[in-house]
Amino acid sequence: MTLEEKVAQLVGVWVGASTEGGDVAPHQHDMDDVIDLDALLPNGLGQLTRPFGSAPVNAGTGALSLLRTQARIAREGRFGIPAVAHEECLAGFAAWGATAYPVPLSWGATFHPQLIERMSRRIGSDMRSVGIHQGLAPVLDVVRDARWGRVEETIGEDPYLVGSIGAAYVRGLESAGIVATLKHFVGYSASKAGRNLAPVSVGPRELADVLLPPFEMVLREGGPRSVMHAYTDIDGVPAAADAELLTGLLRDAWGFEGTVVADYFGVAFLKLLHGVAGTWAEAAGLALEAGVDVELPTVKTFGPPLIDAVRKGAIDEGLVDRALRRVLLQKAGLGLLDTDWSPVPPALVGVDLDDSGAVAAAIDLDSADNRELAGLIAEQSVVLLTNNGILPLGRPSRIAAIGPTSNDPFAVLGCYSFPAHVGVQHPGVAVGIELPTLLESLSAEFGAVDYALGTTIDGGETASIEAAVTAARTADVAIVALGDRAGLFGRGTSGEGCDAESLALPGSQQQLLDAVLATGTPTIVVLLAGRPYALGRAVTEAAAIVQTFFPGQEGTRAIAGVLSGRVNPGGRLPVSVPALPGAQPSTYLAAHLAGPTEVSNIDPSAAFPFGHGLGYAAFEWEALEHGPSTVPIDSSATLALRLRNTGDRAGTEVVQLYLHDPVASIVRPAQRLLGFLRLELAAGQEVDISVDVPAELANFTARGGVRIVEPGELVLGLGRSSGDIPITQRIDVVGPARTVGFDRLLHPTFTELVRRGS
Amino acid sequence: MTLEEKVAQLVGVWVGASTEGGDVAPHQHDMDDVIDLDALLPNGLGQLTRPFGSAPVNAGTGALSLLRTQARIAREGRFGIPAVAHEECLAGFAAWGATAYPVPLSWGATFHPQLIERMSRRIGSDMRSVGIHQGLAPVLDVVRDARWGRVEETIGEDPYLVGSIGAAYVRGLESAGIVATLKHFVGYSASKAGRNLAPVSVGPRELADVLLPPFEMVLREGGPRSVMHAYTDIDGVPAAADAELLTGLLRDAWGFEGTVVADYFGVAFLKLLHGVAGTWAEAAGLALEAGVDVELPTVKTFGPPLIDAVRKGAIDEGLVDRALRRVLLQKAGLGLLDTDWSPVPPALVGVDLDDSGAVAAAIDLDSADNRELAGLIAEQSVVLLTNNGILPLGRPSRIAAIGPTSNDPFAVLGCYSFPAHVGVQHPGVAVGIELPTLLESLSAEFGAVDYALGTTIDGGETASIEAAVTAARTADVAIVALGDRAGLFGRGTSGEGCDAESLALPGSQQQLLDAVLATGTPTIVVLLAGRPYALGRAVTEAAAIVQTFFPGQEGTRAIAGVLSGRVNPGGRLPVSVPALPGAQPSTYLAAHLAGPTEVSNIDPSAAFPFGHGLGYAAFEWEALEHGPSTVPIDSSATLALRLRNTGDRAGTEVVQLYLHDPVASIVRPAQRLLGFLRLELAAGQEVDISVDVPAELANFTARGGVRIVEPGELVLGLGRSSGDIPITQRIDVVGPARTVGFDRLLHPTFTELVRRGS
Repeated sequence: MTLEEKVAQLVGVWVGASTEGGDVAPHQHDMDDVIDLDALLPNGLGQLTRPFGSAPVNAGTGALSLLRTQARIAREGRFGIPAVAHEECLAGFAAWGATAYPVPLSWGATFHPQLIERMSRRIGSDMRSVGIHQGLAPVLDVVRDARWGRVEETIGEDPYLVGSIGAAYVRGLESAGIVATLKHFVGYSASKAGRNLAPVSVGPRELADVLLPPFEMVLREGGPRSVMHAYTDIDGVPAAADAELLTGLLRDAWGFEGTVVADYFGVAFLKLLHGVAGTWAEAAGLALEAGVDVELPTVKTFGPPLIDAVRKGAIDEGLVDRALRRVLLQKAGLGLLDTDWSPVPPALVGVDLDDSGAVAAAIDLDSADNRELAGLIAEQSVVLLTNNGILPLGRPSRIAAIGPTSNDPFAVLGCYSFPAHVGVQHPGVAVGIELPTLLESLSAEFGAVDYALGTTIDGGETASIEAAVTAARTADVAIVALGDRAGLFGRGTSGEGCDAESLALPGSQQQLLDAVLATGTPTIVVLLAGRPYALGRAVTEAAAIVQTFFPGQEGTRAIAGVLSGRVNPGGRLPVSVPALPGAQPSTYLAAHLAGPTEVSNIDPSAAFPFGHGLGYAAFEWEALEHGPSTVPIDSSATLALRLRNTGDRAGTEVVQLYLHDPVASIVRPAQRLLGFLRLELAAGQEVDISVDVPAELANFTARGGVRIVEPGELVLGLGRSSGDIPITQRIDVVGPARTVGFDRLLHPTFTELVRRGS
Repeated sequence: MTLEEKVAQLVGVWVGASTEGGDVAPHQHDMDDVIDLDALLPNGLGQLTRPFGSAPVNAGTGALSLLRTQARIAREGRFGIPAVAHEECLAGFAAWGATAYPVPLSWGATFHPQLIERMSRRIGSDMRSVGIHQGLAPVLDVVRDARWGRVEETIGEDPYLVGSIGAAYVRGLESAGIVATLKHFVGYSASKAGRNLAPVSVGPRELADVLLPPFEMVLREGGPRSVMHAYTDIDGVPAAADAELLTGLLRDAWGFEGTVVADYFGVAFLKLLHGVAGTWAEAAGLALEAGVDVELPTVKTFGPPLIDAVRKGAIDEGLVDRALRRVLLQKAGLGLLDTDWSPVPPALVGVDLDDSGAVAAAIDLDSADNRELAGLIAEQSVVLLTNNGILPLGRPSRIAAIGPTSNDPFAVLGCYSFPAHVGVQHPGVAVGIELPTLLESLSAEFGAVDYALGTTIDGGETASIEAAVTAARTADVAIVALGDRAGLFGRGTSGEGCDAESLALPGSQQQLLDAVLATGTPTIVVLLAGRPYALGRAVTEAAAIVQTFFPGQEGTRAIAGVLSGRVNPGGRLPVSVPALPGAQPSTYLAAHLAGPTEVSNIDPSAAFPFGHGLGYAAFEWEALEHGPSTVPIDSSATLALRLRNTGDRAGTEVVQLYLHDPVASIVRPAQRLLGFLRLELAAGQEVDISVDVPAELANFTARGGVRIVEPGELVLGLGRSSGDIPITQRIDVVGPARTVGFDRLLHPTFTELVRRGS
């Protein structure tokens, strides 16, 4: 291959599906440059960026456009190598008409990896059917500051939860043949004050013990074939230029053999934003040397600047070859180098491509099965925060639905849900899927419902609050629906670039809420949001609080079902809900000193802690006889628990295993999640559970940077949340300290010993 | 010495001066233990903690009590070694009746090291006169989150400013014979969310380039004899247990030979708060091994637990000996081991100690010279943020003074100013110094002034706002005085343990301010505060804004003088004044990505940037011919500047030298202060300045942890603030990269070439 041909395999180009169903994916402007496909394609092309997601074309048109573009790429290049086509798939395949599943923070709320694996297998299957090879998900960033706009894209604030759910997502996507892409490697969520792309101040231990573990866990347990670097710099070193991270850790220590792709424009940002490169060629050289294999979605730096620099000897051609080998191996694995490769995707095999009706009929990205699964996940992710007994509602005579997310079809969507995402570029576009508003779902569930807007999401209007108060006064129950509108780069209150100054509800929503509470009408707060918010007096004064995180297209039906009792909520908080709007950052994963102390007047305790969630069943927790309290350091402790559903209906309990390490050589968090088990119990049913906890799960990064487990006292706890741990067992770990490597088991083992009752 | 005698030299005991002038300093309860001096003293005693500061006794009584206690210690111990008596001296000697100087944030605002050196020499001299040996100042923590309650105790958010002023303070104190104590080593100011003692998330580079430089600079240039460890942990390792920090860096690399003392109870906190020690003995062992020499103000861990552990062989007696050697060397240096040592302090030599009148007359801690200097510093630290021309006021017919700091004598005091500090334990105590309120000083300056409280500082009351609005309406000018009341552990809005949730003005002060602005009466905002606050619409709508940081006992007179024009303000902001109350942390010392970007809707730009401040003179800045633009890496660039006072009165300009490093191997702050020159120019006067800037001032910590200076382009700027840099010079640094060691020059050289005019 010529140098030009090699480098062409290392770039992606951002395209849009032709709205005319043409044979070319029309190029976009790229950072002020116009990409000339005619000039590019004779050398080949590594990746096609977002062939479905950039414009609101229907799936058939998109598939045809991609097919024809792939045929052209294969035809015009000397080796006939098609491009890897990648798409976003954070909350479902980001294409017109594809099912909009709940966003990742809702996945976290399910505490149900198997369910998420089912979802991602469906997503992957839909993507694969229309010719996509790679999906840019999951986000494994651990929430460190909930003001960050991309919190909705994360799975939560606990590394174990993120890793467990993330691994399940990857298994599902990869089992459908789609290359999963772990992002953002690493540190993005810890940007200063939650401002998107702001620098990250963390030390190597926090990195190793909080931010890296989900990546480590998912690499080992999910088998992803790609990793995307983070935009941010940690302590002054941008991830895209960090060879210790992208090569030393990821490949040499962890053995990753897939591709490392750039976050969009991330290589160019080394010059534009980070200032660690003076030219595009320097940016390319830094990234390539660090271990970035593919520049996305542009040829800004890996294009002509890289070629020139290699020609001049400024960049070693061996680095190009190293990346090329990884890209071609991946293409080979995808079958793109097979002699019988065809540009026709599975869904269109045997379909008359000139018959647009047949093409359209061949593709259904929002099948009934998809929708059922989206509904199930939505139901399982609803977190009931408080309930004074008002729920389930049954059939109250008069309901008022109030608030800015009560009649907004977009209130269930995240920033990366296709209609919300593409809507920024194409406002007013048809949505392509059914998005019932909460008001519609409440009406379907309860019959006639009064409605008052109250205030918009972030406009700060207060003029309509009075009408809302009137509606509340005349109702038996006020349902106040608050939260976010997801958007991009400031055009929303949650989502990429939509960071928050504090965790106060946006706009005048708290004022609306307070006014409704003041009426004395029993008030149920429903949150459709991308992040947790402080709720002020509602924490104690609301009759009930129902927290959801952009629950997707079936979300409002799930909420209505929870309110009526048709659905028994079983979600648990994947992030703390704060008591104070300020005083951030603060997550549950904090040392004693980060919590309430006598030495600060600021108490960062959560209003509702990580892991919290109620339901309509009632569970009794009873400690059974635990294993020995002295545990060799290479062995396990055993805890035992009897759970009894004493309620009158089936319900879900999430048994959460926490570790408190009272004395260690390094300051430790007060509580840390080690594992969890989600259980469904019928009314009256009882189950005995044993939990085997290897002592090495108490590992942390010691002085000197080695991950170890130390002898000494540990307190293991089984609880309903990080703030409610009724069963604890002190154990004494004995034996010399041991190192704990990448290959080690990181899970406890939950065993259902016996289940009794109906 | 017996082991008990050795260990006794390594502890301090918190005492209070006897109010009866007795010969014993009565012990205090110490973390639930009662300290028994009768049992302790036969073994000796290392330190006496706060003999003047714990109780409101007059200085004569305190001096006598200390004298008699020292005599007893010398008498009862086998070797007759007196204790080192230490006191707080953060904003003046923390004793009853001593001058309350402006707090350190005001020192920063002066940009005037020489003035601060004069102050600390006076403070030291006063302390020395009554028998004190060591002062627990200065605080060299660099502000990283202005919500932290102790921001008032710091010198500002720039390491160079902190280091310059800090070194001057230390020179003054040490030249008076007092041991200066650098604190808090290191990282305390970066505690999470600004919560006191919360863990610190910073990487080694941020530590090396932002938090450590002031310590390094002051050790080299100030000659302090003591360092106090920080309470906090960095990335999981508490400073008190960090041998790499307290021994590896401080002693081995930097060559420090003095004593390392514990922050109060900091060794015990290793067990109580950090959880890195299981017993008091383990805490003692960790601290001693790390390099803490003296436990303060308690015998909790270095007392019996340490002795037992050494006896049992759990702790090496050599560690005790190492600390003992340092303590005794310091005592020898202080003359405490001299055979002719006398417990009688300088002020009482030759005074009849039985004559309380003579004793009282011999001691004056608030001399006219002190007060004059306190007034000068207060005047020089007033920062005029905006002025629409209303100032100086001249003699308006009717002035209304409004707001919670307008008639509060304590509004000029910091948490460590004696009356505010001791007032927490002894409310209602006589202050011992004159503290005119702003209202009193305004009346003295302008004649009759109307007054309305408006609201209390943090009570949230709004009932009195209407009366304030009425007062504003009927006045020609409204002076709205807002800010903080300093206190301890939550009993205040600024000070130790008085952290803020956000940078909104406490309580209902913004509401009061907005209401007064809405009257249309020209409004001058005066801030008497411990931290910067967002000011909302006042930023653009106030006629003028005058920012002070607890300006001490002469502070309100200085403010009144600025308002009348008697004083020409010349202070500059040592911290940014934020535009938003949330979105913290954010300081000026931020990389491009931490500033306004297209990728976040949150713009953290300051309302008033670091270094900003106006005056009543007018200065023209004119670039003269700079030196060559190509600069060898071991050489210097030269910039030249002509400054002309075109106003009609004398005034102050602070020429600030900034560095912008467009491309470096590590992400760099957009601007960084390299030096400054404070100049007084008479009306019509003109001065030519040259600035010699060694290229190595552009150093930073590179990958691999070594501090280097790199070749390449730099942009040097001379400006009025970090946001207003009218003169820039691009230079090209040539030659191979060089390492920059601890011993290297860290200052530019400003030279006044010629001064013309009256």
